[in-house]
Amino acid sequence: MPRFNPLVANLAAPPIPTVFAWGRSYDGSKGPMIDLSQAVPGYPAHPEMLRRLGEYAASTAYTGYGPIEGEDALRQAYGAHVASVYGAALGAENIHVTAGCNQAFICAAMAVAGAGDTVLMTDPYYFNQETTLAMLGVKVRLAPCDPDNGFQPDLAAIEAAMTPDVRALALVSPNNPTGAVYSPELLSTVFDLCQARGVWLILDETYRDFLPEAGVRPHGLFDKAGWQDTLIGLYSFSKAFCIPGHRLGAITASPSVVEQVAKVMDNVQICPPRSPQAAVAEALPLLSTWREENRLEIARRATALKETMEGLNGWSIGAVGAYFSFIRHPFPERTSTEVAERLAKEAGILCLPGSYFGPGQERYLRFAFANAGAPTIGLLRQRLQEFGGPV
Amino acid sequence: MPRFNPLVANLAAPPIPTVFAWGRSYDGSKGPMIDLSQAVPGYPAHPEMLRRLGEYAASTAYTGYGPIEGEDALRQAYGAHVASVYGAALGAENIHVTAGCNQAFICAAMAVAGAGDTVLMTDPYYFNQETTLAMLGVKVRLAPCDPDNGFQPDLAAIEAAMTPDVRALALVSPNNPTGAVYSPELLSTVFDLCQARGVWLILDETYRDFLPEAGVRPHGLFDKAGWQDTLIGLYSFSKAFCIPGHRLGAITASPSVVEQVAKVMDNVQICPPRSPQAAVAEALPLLSTWREENRLEIARRATALKETMEGLNGWSIGAVGAYFSFIRHPFPERTSTEVAERLAKEAGILCLPGSYFGPGQERYLRFAFANAGAPTIGLLRQRLQEFGGPV
Ligand SMILES: Cc1ncc(COP(=O)(O)O)c(C=O)c1O
Ligand SMILES: Cc1ncc(COP(=O)(O)O)c(C=O)c1O
Repeated sequence: MPRFNPLVANLAAPPIPTVFAWGRSYDGSKGPMIDLSQAVPGYPAHPEMLRRLGEYAASTAYTGYGPIEGEDALRQAYGAHVASVYGAALGAENIHVTAGCNQAFICAAMAVAGAGDTVLMTDPYYFNQETTLAMLGVKVRLAPCDPDNGFQPDLAAIEAAMTPDVRALALVSPNNPTGAVYSPELLSTVFDLCQARGVWLILDETYRDFLPEAGVRPHGLFDKAGWQDTLIGLYSFSKAFCIPGHRLGAITASPSVVEQVAKVMDNVQICPPRSPQAAVAEALPLLSTWREENRLEIARRATALKETMEGLNGWSIGAVGAYFSFIRHPFPERTSTEVAERLAKEAGILCLPGSYFGPGQERYLRFAFANAGAPTIGLLRQRLQEFGGPV
Repeated sequence: MPRFNPLVANLAAPPIPTVFAWGRSYDGSKGPMIDLSQAVPGYPAHPEMLRRLGEYAASTAYTGYGPIEGEDALRQAYGAHVASVYGAALGAENIHVTAGCNQAFICAAMAVAGAGDTVLMTDPYYFNQETTLAMLGVKVRLAPCDPDNGFQPDLAAIEAAMTPDVRALALVSPNNPTGAVYSPELLSTVFDLCQARGVWLILDETYRDFLPEAGVRPHGLFDKAGWQDTLIGLYSFSKAFCIPGHRLGAITASPSVVEQVAKVMDNVQICPPRSPQAAVAEALPLLSTWREENRLEIARRATALKETMEGLNGWSIGAVGAYFSFIRHPFPERTSTEVAERLAKEAGILCLPGSYFGPGQERYLRFAFANAGAPTIGLLRQRLQEFGGPV
């Protein structure tokens, strides 16, 4: 009787469909479901984006295989974009386009680590990074974030965990699941540590476009001497452009990392989907004002969330920032999965249990508040109040 | 100094770009380049296909994340299609859509084998299958095909190589690189052997739509008792629909294989690109006549190739079938890479060296003849003649 690869067989079922299934047993009694589960933009893609997606998808110019590393037009446009975002000397040669940022992570991880190697992550972590490493047989070591400090990474814990067998440290900023934004100073210190220890820093900045402040450079790591041998930046076009269904992400790294990633990508999918690349290459400069408006809108949603949670009996905000908030629930005797499942079924609030993001997170729930407008977020207050908590 | 994963670092650069680079140094003196390198359909996608691709790409209905396993519409349409192709009880629950067939392979391979396990392949093999396994740390064992029998797999060699550590046998029929079509009887025998030994049979039928005869069922494996625990079928929409740039393929397997693959796919790219799935779901029944015309056209190209090679000094056809021909070159003292590079640069014929497909293939070149129309194929004769060979 043939068996499955135990590394895959032992993975839990993908989390999002499980949570959607809870949602389907909600009877609607509290009003329409408030879906704060998957991180999906709660507003549609821009019409100019859609027009281009349609035009290029219908064109024979993009039906053939394309370059493994991505379309020249997008590598150039995105190279110029990151050069400006980070104020650093970056260009097309630093870019490898992927079919989304999960794919960017698996390609980057495989380029630097194989089965038996160790990769360091925080607890909480973005679950697909953990399952990706697990299914590859890469060992994961966790450095806890500090819940009393808005879930910022704990530098001492990272340093202590960084034994010589560690090949890479994976960080996510702005963070999923907590929303915490890591400061340029903190990232600089972490980078220096990685560089000193010969450890790759894989930095996922999927939510970079949703930083609370406008026009601030997220960090100066791409400006540091020798960054090429330490830093691999990851990004997703899914969130900022509202096009996850078109599957586009990117890696920003040295040309030699790009070269290694291309070998992985050739096996994983030959080339990223082509016509959306042509569309995004044009949309990137074109829709910058629209993206800035969305950033402001999501900042308003963060404010609405803070208001809705203010003084709510037993509930509190563990962290809040770009896109997500990590919410502390008032049921110490229940698992986060029980709480999330009941919230879905009884209160019509769909969110993810903290335990999906790491072993230490049973007291938390992830609210992807960016999915919902401020009025909807306002409805949370009554539903959570009725749902209860210890008096 | 951080290092790369040696399994990735040791991979050769992706083969196709290398070959394209040779082509760029051809001076055009023999006439336009005849490109028989990458397997790309030499005719455009159907207008009805393009119209749908455009329409759905522009629609907000497909901008969000979709089901990991693929759109219901495509799983249903393709499930019905394979049910009819194989005359077997197959449906949506047997289908996992992927972003191309390379991705189908890596997902299927990871579901059944991990680092240190062994997977059996033929020599020659489809190179991305070999590099995929190599980068995962899966050991590859090769069973040679028989060049004196049109590169059919050698059953005795397969049986001898199938020691208890083998988790899967990967076969490609119609074959890339040789074009050889494996008979239903041969596949049945191989399947029985796999089933008896508890080995998965991963059967890549990317070129299934280009079988030399119309309406023949490729094999009866999906009808065999217990096929669910042995067979994983792979397919690509790239070739039959001329849309490789849109990245779509599929796995046909038991629901429990689909369940394991979904866990891998969630990490590899969350979901396949969505709008092309909607387009292909409709095109699948709609364009069946068009696909049949293409099958006939490619059969004519095979005939043209046989004619062009007929009695050509020192050159001969090692195998020819669907899409590809494996051509024996007349230079025993040169490597296949030398011959292919010189053919590109001096004769304006772009093809792949046999050595890309396995250690035993130095005497061969792969001609993806399906890329070129019969008149272009006719031009090969003079160019090969002038290029020479031992008298
Ligand atoms: C931190 C992080 N990285 C990567 C991804 C994957 O995004 P995609 O594959 O859609 O680009 C997500 C999606 O939620 C994410 O939250
Ligand atoms: C045998 C075989 N399998 C899989 C593939 C990958 O096809 P795609 O990823 O475009 O579906 C190819 C492409 O040439 C192939 O020849």
